[in-house]
Amino acid sequence: MRKVSSGGITAIYPGSFDPITNGHLDVIKRCCNLFEKVIVAVLLNAAKTPLFSTAERVRMLREATGHLKNVSVETFEGLLVDYARRKRARVIVRGIRAVSDYEYELQMALMNRRLDDSIETVFMMPAESYSYLSSRLVKEVFLLGGSVNGLVPPTVETALAKKIKR
Amino acid sequence: MRKVSSGGITAIYPGSFDPITNGHLDVIKRCCNLFEKVIVAVLLNAAKTPLFSTAERVRMLREATGHLKNVSVETFEGLLVDYARRKRARVIVRGIRAVSDYEYELQMALMNRRLDDSIETVFMMPAESYSYLSSRLVKEVFLLGGSVNGLVPPTVETALAKKIKR
Amino acid sequence: MRKVSSGGITAIYPGSFDPITNGHLDVIKRCCNLFEKVIVAVLLNAAKTPLFSTAERVRMLREATGHLKNVSVETFEGLLVDYARRKRARVIVRGIRAVSDYEYELQMALMNRRLDDSIETVFMMPAESYSYLSSRLVKEVFLLGGSVNGLVPPTVETALAKKIKR
Amino acid sequence: MRKVSSGGITAIYPGSFDPITNGHLDVIKRCCNLFEKVIVAVLLNAAKTPLFSTAERVRMLREATGHLKNVSVETFEGLLVDYARRKRARVIVRGIRAVSDYEYELQMALMNRRLDDSIETVFMMPAESYSYLSSRLVKEVFLLGGSVNGLVPPTVETALAKKIKR
Amino acid sequence: MRKVSSGGITAIYPGSFDPITNGHLDVIKRCCNLFEKVIVAVLLNAAKTPLFSTAERVRMLREATGHLKNVSVETFEGLLVDYARRKRARVIVRGIRAVSDYEYELQMALMNRRLDDSIETVFMMPAESYSYLSSRLVKEVFLLGGSVNGLVPPTVETALAKKIKR
Amino acid sequence: MRKVSSGGITAIYPGSFDPITNGHLDVIKRCCNLFEKVIVAVLLNAAKTPLFSTAERVRMLREATGHLKNVSVETFEGLLVDYARRKRARVIVRGIRAVSDYEYELQMALMNRRLDDSIETVFMMPAESYSYLSSRLVKEVFLLGGSVNGLVPPTVETALAKKIKR
Repeated sequence: MRKVSSGGITAIYPGSFDPITNGHLDVIKRCCNLFEKVIVAVLLNAAKTPLFSTAERVRMLREATGHLKNVSVETFEGLLVDYARRKRARVIVRGIRAVSDYEYELQMALMNRRLDDSIETVFMMPAESYSYLSSRLVKEVFLLGGSVNGLVPPTVETALAKKIKR
Repeated sequence: MRKVSSGGITAIYPGSFDPITNGHLDVIKRCCNLFEKVIVAVLLNAAKTPLFSTAERVRMLREATGHLKNVSVETFEGLLVDYARRKRARVIVRGIRAVSDYEYELQMALMNRRLDDSIETVFMMPAESYSYLSSRLVKEVFLLGGSVNGLVPPTVETALAKKIKR
Repeated sequence: MRKVSSGGITAIYPGSFDPITNGHLDVIKRCCNLFEKVIVAVLLNAAKTPLFSTAERVRMLREATGHLKNVSVETFEGLLVDYARRKRARVIVRGIRAVSDYEYELQMALMNRRLDDSIETVFMMPAESYSYLSSRLVKEVFLLGGSVNGLVPPTVETALAKKIKR
Repeated sequence: MRKVSSGGITAIYPGSFDPITNGHLDVIKRCCNLFEKVIVAVLLNAAKTPLFSTAERVRMLREATGHLKNVSVETFEGLLVDYARRKRARVIVRGIRAVSDYEYELQMALMNRRLDDSIETVFMMPAESYSYLSSRLVKEVFLLGGSVNGLVPPTVETALAKKIKR
Repeated sequence: MRKVSSGGITAIYPGSFDPITNGHLDVIKRCCNLFEKVIVAVLLNAAKTPLFSTAERVRMLREATGHLKNVSVETFEGLLVDYARRKRARVIVRGIRAVSDYEYELQMALMNRRLDDSIETVFMMPAESYSYLSSRLVKEVFLLGGSVNGLVPPTVETALAKKIKR
Repeated sequence: MRKVSSGGITAIYPGSFDPITNGHLDVIKRCCNLFEKVIVAVLLNAAKTPLFSTAERVRMLREATGHLKNVSVETFEGLLVDYARRKRARVIVRGIRAVSDYEYELQMALMNRRLDDSIETVFMMPAESYSYLSSRLVKEVFLLGGSVNGLVPPTVETALAKKIKR
């Protein structure tokens, strides 16, 4: 990897991160090479019941991204584009894995563009070795007794072991 | 649209552009908001027989993007990542419209990443009103006597009329 | 648009319409040009908890389609093909936006054909400017404080504002 | 099947039909139940070299659809929407089988709508037993010595046997 | 069908089978031609509330597959690959119908391979006449008063009639 | 990997193999664990002009698979199912990577099943690190001066260097 040159653009990488996987981490690292500032934004979603609390998810994200200088971890509520505007972010980053992901993401991106045309959504690919990874699948495998070593940062493995006594 | 803040990153938008459509132009404009320098790179492809010569395609691209300060138009041969490296570009931009596009693009992007992991491919969406546009379809419609007004920049309309006496 | 010539065929456009969007309305208008009678049929689905009551949804549909002479709004329960048979409708109309839609729709259409081969499902496209629209997304955006102006008929905007005090 | 009631609408079912398959025939029959007049329109495409001449393809189509009262077989050149306008047809019918078909068809339909918004494209499904059928595959299988019985009308089987001495 | 020659390989066909459909049965029959032993494995999933109890589902599967010599019906909990290892099965069989199925299946298969690379997932197609069939759709149609004759084995039809008094 | 137990089933893995890639090789290895005999069958296709002659492709396949005891390399003409029948093979194996692949493969498999219902097509996944690999892409990259090390067996790299003086 080359050295990161400075640039004026802030990108937001939004998600539930329940928990962060190595696929997310891979996308975050790639963002760091393209944008001056990367905000990993944890969505506060009242409707869903996450495995990890917001505080736990933020802590794990901070631990996993601590070595990346231009990354910050935050939480947000409400419309993503409103949040982006407040943070003066011009870019929303989404990682795409599969075709089905892509269609949903396209729909969201078009709606977001309609809500604020000055904020652009860009799509990035995680490394192909993470193409099948999702937070849901990680939790499912761990819950059933499988190893998630190599699929999530060490801090998540520890947290999963504490959270789920299997 | 907000003012573009300066940034250190050069992006390459490669293609055949035979000819440039308003869909391409829309992606180029969006790139200009995200990257300091945008190189529109016309692929010299010996295998295909384009409707417009390389010189014609470059001229039309220059006319259509003349008002965009940070855009330059060039031609390239050989591997895209080698060209990107020579231009010190860190980003390859691809516009995606449909699911079938997306799969092919993903395959190319993964191969390019394997050839040089320091160059990132990002995917952007053209405006949905251009979602069905392609250079091939524009040529086909024009050849059959249909109007392509609003689908291509004016310079392309004029060039098509000269090239194809229908 | 040309004048609608009379024809003997009744088409059913079924859905939840919770609430109707401009994408639905676009499909309904296009149906009116093709079929003599168009029945917009609101599915009474005990399993789901809609935002708007059946009465509210029917009222909004009637307001939004009031200017279309050959449209009526009804509710139905049970198998769609049984309802279609009772209404002497020969066509079920479905709007399709994305590939994922399309697969599910195909599955339903094949099952419906198996249940009654004399009733045909035809697929129509909403205008591409509505390609990303869905009732779910409209509610989500409104709930989070975003504007849905231009995405739904005025009657729906008013109803959303009353229903959701944000 | 119920009796077909008369209606004022003419539909065009365009294609190469090189040769007609039972999948095409199934779509044509279904059209006859929905529209007053169905024009099967053979595209004269200078660019492709078909196996069967235009005259042969028209003759096979006429034989295969002879028992369907409201079907006529014609040829056309130029833009499909121009031809539809000349025939006072309000509907273009396309059969869809697979997701990849569907994306291309959507693109064409959106372009056609842009060229003439008064002509509507509707998509219909062939019976699922023909979901894998295409003219190309029929020719390929026959050429390699496989039986295409049940995949094409009898007139096509005879014509293939004459055309391809295997 | 040719006679089945003996082979040393055990295949597992996992699922919820709530209830078994003729599409499942078709895949099971095809498996029997390829593998020495086929275990139909009913997933005990605490999270979902099935229509039929585990015992009922196992009984119906046994009745429907009773004539197939090399098929056994079992239940399992926990990770599928752990279960496969215990049964000395080298193959997991999955039936695929649609593109959306396929993507999810691919994701699961890649995760399973990562958990145990000695167990291979193979994908098989049900007959195209069952391409639209799913347990969910069968239940939905039956509940609404439609006939599921020909879509499920006779034992399931009887069981549905008992379970759902409509 | 566990030891391969003997079984009576012969599988055919057909293709152009122009040239064999590590993705093909990965699928071949996985086949060896499931079937007693695996025939890698090079299609003699008069219509295409391959980069490597049939003899060269067979030689490279033999070198790359020489260490796999139950693999043989052959060529075939005509219908695949006729060839399979002659070889007493009950299984056709196809590797699938992307959704677009999958649809075409499904179409071919359904046609092959119609031509001979006693021969089953099964789909297998190459390792995800080869998900973007194709013979076409390998040739393209090599021709443009890129390294294909790790993407093809060593014998192919040598052959490419001899064939294409770049």
